[in-house]
Amino acid sequence: MPELLPRARSSQESVFARMSRLAAQHGAINLGQGFPSDSPPAFLLEAARQAVGTLDQYAPPAGLPALRDALGADLGVDGVDVVVTTGATEAMGLLAQALYGPGDEVLMLEPVFDIYLPQARLAGATPVTVPLRLTAEGGWTLDLDELRAAVTPRTRALLLNSPHNPTGRVFTREELEAVAALARQHDLWLISDEVYDELYFGERPLGLRTLAPERTFTVGSAGKRLEATGWRVGWVACPPGYVGNLTGLRQVASFCAPTPFQAAVAAALPVARQSGFYEGLREGYAARLDLLAGGLRDLGAEVFRPGGTYFLMARRPGWEAGTLVERAGVAVIPGEAFAAREPALKGLFRLAFCKSQAELEQALERLGRFVQADREAEHRPV
Amino acid sequence: MPELLPRARSSQESVFARMSRLAAQHGAINLGQGFPSDSPPAFLLEAARQAVGTLDQYAPPAGLPALRDALGADLGVDGVDVVVTTGATEAMGLLAQALYGPGDEVLMLEPVFDIYLPQARLAGATPVTVPLRLTAEGGWTLDLDELRAAVTPRTRALLLNSPHNPTGRVFTREELEAVAALARQHDLWLISDEVYDELYFGERPLGLRTLAPERTFTVGSAGKRLEATGWRVGWVACPPGYVGNLTGLRQVASFCAPTPFQAAVAAALPVARQSGFYEGLREGYAARLDLLAGGLRDLGAEVFRPGGTYFLMARRPGWEAGTLVERAGVAVIPGEAFAAREPALKGLFRLAFCKSQAELEQALERLGRFVQADREAEHRPV
Ligand SMILES: Cc1ncc(COP(=O)(O)O)c(C=O)c1O
Ligand SMILES: Cc1ncc(COP(=O)(O)O)c(C=O)c1O
Repeated sequence: MPELLPRARSSQESVFARMSRLAAQHGAINLGQGFPSDSPPAFLLEAARQAVGTLDQYAPPAGLPALRDALGADLGVDGVDVVVTTGATEAMGLLAQALYGPGDEVLMLEPVFDIYLPQARLAGATPVTVPLRLTAEGGWTLDLDELRAAVTPRTRALLLNSPHNPTGRVFTREELEAVAALARQHDLWLISDEVYDELYFGERPLGLRTLAPERTFTVGSAGKRLEATGWRVGWVACPPGYVGNLTGLRQVASFCAPTPFQAAVAAALPVARQSGFYEGLREGYAARLDLLAGGLRDLGAEVFRPGGTYFLMARRPGWEAGTLVERAGVAVIPGEAFAAREPALKGLFRLAFCKSQAELEQALERLGRFVQADREAEHRPV
Repeated sequence: MPELLPRARSSQESVFARMSRLAAQHGAINLGQGFPSDSPPAFLLEAARQAVGTLDQYAPPAGLPALRDALGADLGVDGVDVVVTTGATEAMGLLAQALYGPGDEVLMLEPVFDIYLPQARLAGATPVTVPLRLTAEGGWTLDLDELRAAVTPRTRALLLNSPHNPTGRVFTREELEAVAALARQHDLWLISDEVYDELYFGERPLGLRTLAPERTFTVGSAGKRLEATGWRVGWVACPPGYVGNLTGLRQVASFCAPTPFQAAVAAALPVARQSGFYEGLREGYAARLDLLAGGLRDLGAEVFRPGGTYFLMARRPGWEAGTLVERAGVAVIPGEAFAAREPALKGLFRLAFCKSQAELEQALERLGRFVQADREAEHRPV
């Protein structure tokens, strides 16, 4: 048989898929992969059940006009500048293909959401990471000088993610202004992954686009916003003039996003905005964040509180993702999953609190029993 | 602003998307893009409405186990060798990434389904086409010697599509055996696009996989089989041992196919098989094929009868896709859309008969009026 291309040989099962598989295998509570336990809201489900049987055929590759308009209204852009994609995952991959290639470097922050690295490499480019560092106070700082120093003549784009997965960091106006200035100075593209734009616990995150509309591609996800990660509806809001090219790539990738779910999301976006759905989501998740963070601290873990997303990072000596899923029955994502070159992420892990209160309580109980068993083992005479 | 990559600059709106747009714009009957006017079957819709609200979160990237099993049973392969994709479009793109790259050539037949060319180029490879030629009797022949002669030391893969879009050609056992032998001789991958495997009007098409299971990747589409092109569920049946690598690429492309529709297709596949759904589909389409082909012949067109798919090709002096959509109010796909280098396709066009009887009748009526108006214009004194 001929060989596979190296790019296919090196691609592997993602750590998220693997941890979900191990969670199922060990009957573990899955605080690993970032999908909610709750169902999507009734207004979204109702709209989808109506679209099924009505809008079942190909949509225009750029998206149903109704959805592009709804997104335009929601994001404060013109609907003609929006391309609908098969989730934010595909959106990020299309932007990689369009904006950087062989010989180019793309800057991104580390810890890094896992798909950015293979997507940059598939596009032929080199990902270059700049670390977010844990401070003594348990926050994550971006050293702007370090970011500036990472720019080379080959740098073509800078990829930001705010609120940031996995740290939950929400970047400040000052930081984003510095990023925008840097991009202008070196004529870089800006890719802003804002799939958690409605999931924050303090101030509303600022969209990078507002500071550099001419060069910022903003990526979003209906799966994250509306609690339907399996529906595969995402989007890119482009600077004016780029929708045609992105649509060309998009139709070769998967032609269009699922039509009935596009229609449902189009109907649901204004309802979500007007009915206070996002506020309710934030309140619910803030309570679960408190529950999980408090419970983990009680078990002796160090917890790094997020400003957004539905993840938190934590660490505790003796805890390690492989052991936790097998022996404690709780699946988490190891920090190394987000590492490109930083050893500092070892020992940390990410927990998702987009799970039900009952699951979070049960997970804490299991972790408590695991701690207890460990203590007893230590004190058992040998 | 920095430049886009050449691969993004050159990608364009597909002719299918464009003709659908023009059809809407001119109020034309759309015999262009290949999506059915009929709704998907009730058993599929029912299953989808049940899955919505139940299975709304990420599926494993390789696909829901229930769907992989159902596909295995339906295709006569092991479910573990099946990867579920976001439509056959994505399946073909993933195979391009995995199987050929810079410096490689991939053989395909011309007329060629439009996405194969940009997908090969995005993968870095060079598409090389071998023509299907129209015979005096109105059939399309593949010259096997010409195919053999097209193989070079750089050839890595051969891409076949049977039943073939746009010609409707169903390749014979002898042809497929010659293709399989050629692939063995030169150690080529075989990619078999069989999205129309259940849409045929004569003998059942033979799957290339049965002749070269060790090297054939078979691509299919629930959208085509179950009349739900907008649901974006496709698949690849792989030779044993390749699912892991393809899944790795797949999760970076769009993570997973829409979960509720995967569940619905899993439930529907055995029902479709056992209830005679495909037989009904073929009967219905055979009648519409007769209607359209007969009507076109009555208007003086030359019609090339397909052995499968829901398309036919035709030509008539003075008919041209741009004029027909604007002046006759009927959208068709011009032959050039399927051309890589053959001028012979000029003057031909493809019509889809997966439309309702009423639409086909109305389209014929409009074409008749267009012919009439042309005749009158000719005879009008100047
Ligand atoms: C930062 C970030 N970007 C993109 C995605 C992918 O989103 P989608 O499910 O819409 O493909 C995720 C999913 O977890 C994410 O965390
Ligand atoms: C030959 C062929 N392959 C693949 C596809 C794409 O199928 P899907 O809608 O499942 O992406 C089509 C659609 O028309 C086709 O005709």
